[in-house]
Amino acid sequence: MKKIDSISEMQKISEELRASGKTIAFVPTMGFLHEGHLELMREGKRRTDILIASIFINPIQFGFSEDLDAYPRDMEGDFKKAKNAGTDFIFIPSVKEMYPKTFQTTINLKSITNHLCGLSRPGHFDGVAIVIAKLFNITRPHIAIFGQKDFQQLAIIRCMVKDLNLDIEIIGHQTVREDDGLAMSSRNSYLNSKEQISALCLKKSLDLSIAMVNGGVTETLKIKSAIEKLISTHSFVEIDYITICDPETMEDINIIEGEALLALAVYIGKTRLIDNCLLNA
Amino acid sequence: MKKIDSISEMQKISEELRASGKTIAFVPTMGFLHEGHLELMREGKRRTDILIASIFINPIQFGFSEDLDAYPRDMEGDFKKAKNAGTDFIFIPSVKEMYPKTFQTTINLKSITNHLCGLSRPGHFDGVAIVIAKLFNITRPHIAIFGQKDFQQLAIIRCMVKDLNLDIEIIGHQTVREDDGLAMSSRNSYLNSKEQISALCLKKSLDLSIAMVNGGVTETLKIKSAIEKLISTHSFVEIDYITICDPETMEDINIIEGEALLALAVYIGKTRLIDNCLLNA
Repeated sequence: MKKIDSISEMQKISEELRASGKTIAFVPTMGFLHEGHLELMREGKRRTDILIASIFINPIQFGFSEDLDAYPRDMEGDFKKAKNAGTDFIFIPSVKEMYPKTFQTTINLKSITNHLCGLSRPGHFDGVAIVIAKLFNITRPHIAIFGQKDFQQLAIIRCMVKDLNLDIEIIGHQTVREDDGLAMSSRNSYLNSKEQISALCLKKSLDLSIAMVNGGVTETLKIKSAIEKLISTHSFVEIDYITICDPETMEDINIIEGEALLALAVYIGKTRLIDNCLLNA
Repeated sequence: MKKIDSISEMQKISEELRASGKTIAFVPTMGFLHEGHLELMREGKRRTDILIASIFINPIQFGFSEDLDAYPRDMEGDFKKAKNAGTDFIFIPSVKEMYPKTFQTTINLKSITNHLCGLSRPGHFDGVAIVIAKLFNITRPHIAIFGQKDFQQLAIIRCMVKDLNLDIEIIGHQTVREDDGLAMSSRNSYLNSKEQISALCLKKSLDLSIAMVNGGVTETLKIKSAIEKLISTHSFVEIDYITICDPETMEDINIIEGEALLALAVYIGKTRLIDNCLLNA
């Protein structure tokens, strides 16, 4: 595995790989890699000749009061894990090179960002869109793989790729979970042992909703009430949002007909966690 | 010369050309081609193996009260001219394919658009940025050529290419003029014979300013006053702006030290025309 920290060097390597007929998979990360990231990498490696991963904690997707400084880091551990998962090139640019002083371009997706985490975290998805557009242009992949845990992020990237006519196949990979059901996330490292138990309310809410829909309930208000009740039995939990919406447009729905996305965001103590699943009525 | 109206077909051709080692030049236009466009095409053909040009009247770069519907068109004439100028592929997508109903992505450059035409034409450069980003991703050029007449547009595209890490060399080509000095523009076709004479105030203003700077004048206020006076002797002319600014940031300057951009926008009757030149003190 080769470590690359220069944009121009990474771009040159990607172009040469493409010119020689190699296919490239790309997995962008903010590091502190867990099994969720590694599954994306293995999936990329299975599908293409060359796997490029990136580690870049993107400052502009964090809000002022968010956890940029505290965001967990383990570069040496990440290198070992990425290498074992089949990464050929790990791209680790500096903030200074990604965002020089003259940097001023923003990318905004006006409808799809106006829901769910886009409301709780203003500007977050603009930061995601610009960094992913930059990373795509630097690594020039044929496919890029994202976790379905960040469902709205995945929908935004799919839409941006379509709107900008980027010739990249976007693959959503199913959420990888701990044995107890908690969706893997770098932010899980913030939880103490009591909070870890409370955090299970997320997966329990998904399971409850699936059971209700399978049992014939289609009114989203009923499902959301049941989730609220379930969550209220857990300590340290504050609900940010419980939303059942169209999986493409992210617009709220009242009655589930066909496929719907259930998306949850909660604070467990000070830690904000998200989870989601598809519901099929 | 091959005519292509499908995005996917154009993208496939460009990728195959690149994969076979060919270099590509790209010249985007809104059609009604004149010698200014054709010079950009010839320059592109001189520099690369393959020349792709596009004709697309981009609706989202026109304001509500602007001349979208009246914008001059001559597709058959354009095809002949583009072919003679060395164009290998002419890309002519539909508005529907470029902007399907679900389209929602915007690209904004916050500092550089906040000057000159960006103030007179709100949203104009967002429309330019998104269509150029799309066309670049569809035609995948190594170089792209733009006229210096649209100096701010050129600066914005250079900045966007740098910010998004697009691996494309942007070339600015000097303004092509009629024998009488009028900068070539598709909008010149709106002028009647009296207005054509008034329109010469633009080039005369540039010449006057260069003469003043060569004569030692560096205070931009003095130069702008002299231009106002000169323009006031022409009929049917209303000044939109007279600006002397930094050629990269587009920020106003008071005293010229080194290189400065003089940019003018005037209405000749109902027709808005622009022109510019560099001043060197």
